[in-house]
Amino acid sequence: MFTLVGLGLGDASDITLKGLKAVREADIVYLEAYTSFLINSSAAELASVYDRPVLVADREMVESGEVLQEASEKKVVLLVVGDVFGATTHSDLVVRCHKQRITCRAIHNASIINAVGCCGLQLYRFGQVLSLCFWTETWRPDSWYDRLKSNRAMGLHTLVLLDIKVKEISDENLARGRKVYEPSRYMRITEAIDQILEVEQERKGGAVAADGSTVAIGLARVGSTTQQVVAGTMRELREVDFGDPLHSLIIAGDIHACEMEHVDLFRVN
Amino acid sequence: MFTLVGLGLGDASDITLKGLKAVREADIVYLEAYTSFLINSSAAELASVYDRPVLVADREMVESGEVLQEASEKKVVLLVVGDVFGATTHSDLVVRCHKQRITCRAIHNASIINAVGCCGLQLYRFGQVLSLCFWTETWRPDSWYDRLKSNRAMGLHTLVLLDIKVKEISDENLARGRKVYEPSRYMRITEAIDQILEVEQERKGGAVAADGSTVAIGLARVGSTTQQVVAGTMRELREVDFGDPLHSLIIAGDIHACEMEHVDLFRVN
Repeated sequence: MFTLVGLGLGDASDITLKGLKAVREADIVYLEAYTSFLINSSAAELASVYDRPVLVADREMVESGEVLQEASEKKVVLLVVGDVFGATTHSDLVVRCHKQRITCRAIHNASIINAVGCCGLQLYRFGQVLSLCFWTETWRPDSWYDRLKSNRAMGLHTLVLLDIKVKEISDENLARGRKVYEPSRYMRITEAIDQILEVEQERKGGAVAADGSTVAIGLARVGSTTQQVVAGTMRELREVDFGDPLHSLIIAGDIHACEMEHVDLFRVN
Repeated sequence: MFTLVGLGLGDASDITLKGLKAVREADIVYLEAYTSFLINSSAAELASVYDRPVLVADREMVESGEVLQEASEKKVVLLVVGDVFGATTHSDLVVRCHKQRITCRAIHNASIINAVGCCGLQLYRFGQVLSLCFWTETWRPDSWYDRLKSNRAMGLHTLVLLDIKVKEISDENLARGRKVYEPSRYMRITEAIDQILEVEQERKGGAVAADGSTVAIGLARVGSTTQQVVAGTMRELREVDFGDPLHSLIIAGDIHACEMEHVDLFRVN
């Protein structure tokens, strides 16, 4: 039996009663710790609250399917930050379970995809979600631009998820076969705004105003006790200190009157 | 203090530990019971699991802000099925709290918006969400059609939420000032498919194939133990018995190879 358990967004107490029951009944509990991370709780804290040992599963263990190794005979839980199907790799585990005739179930929880409703914009007025990656000197992907442009052309809001680099190996170390991990990095709202404005200035498609006057909402640590939500122009938001990760950004589309009253609670200044 | 607590989708055990703590510490606990309903638990069952009285708050109590009446001095919780900002009316309560200087917080949970990932389609490949209403003889809204068409033109999946009618008063009773509620109604997947195909046949815009050959996924009671997910053409799905509510429908866009393997687990037949 393999159970994917969503942890929600804040800390150890965001697990559901159903999720906690699955954890307490499990023989092995893994924490998936590379597609996201829990803002206010480490694996040790989870273990202490759940009163069960929690093993950290890194990218290799999840993508290779190693976490399923004992799931034919034992009850194995994989804890996932947010909801369980936020990353392709978790869908892949469901497919592997089916092939290996392992019973598989999912216990859902909040994810940034729905919790973003806290900013006052209505969820049914969002278009396609975008993800921004850290650029390197030689790799500057901007394929998200057309999607942003088409959301905006339809008056829709755009949730922009920002890159997370956990347990990455540098090209140099990879080439030399050295398993040395780089420090974790999390993209900040300011970096995301700069990247979007830079691509707008190159492509000139009018996805956002090139002078940074388009309204956006910055969100940090959504669902935690230190959650921060600030609305303003992109230019204003890039000056705001949003503090610790995780950061997300919304590029607003047309804001309806009923949304505006709620969004106004978060205006910069 | 006013706390919106998301209940998730299945039953009383889908509340989070944080949500349950808020309920247990509250002076008054309301259940919002008209924008959705919990598939497998009544208010009485929630009260029994949470060991607290749970008062049902109907549309009038929520929309008038009556649920906030005692929140200045007491701890008031409003339980909301799914996540807390699924409906405009909950955003409105946050704005009212601000105006009345009532401290307000939200405890998130899963909603259909993210739990729909269980069908194997990736959440970041969905376009704008649609809602279908029950048609009457004189009112047949189809403004969703253009949104479906533009999602499909971009190869995006479309989550279609189906109408819920709870505590509605008929036009006749309304005219006569009689507070008589109609029986609750929940739109079924078959009705939703028929409505979409009917509008396609009228508008002929090619949002979906008029012969019902477009691939879709029907979902019933997502997040509960009796969850049902079936993938097939719209024509095939309209013959499937999805059983009790709540039902949702996805009109698939382009299905990527990595999605297909997971979706194939749910193929009709």
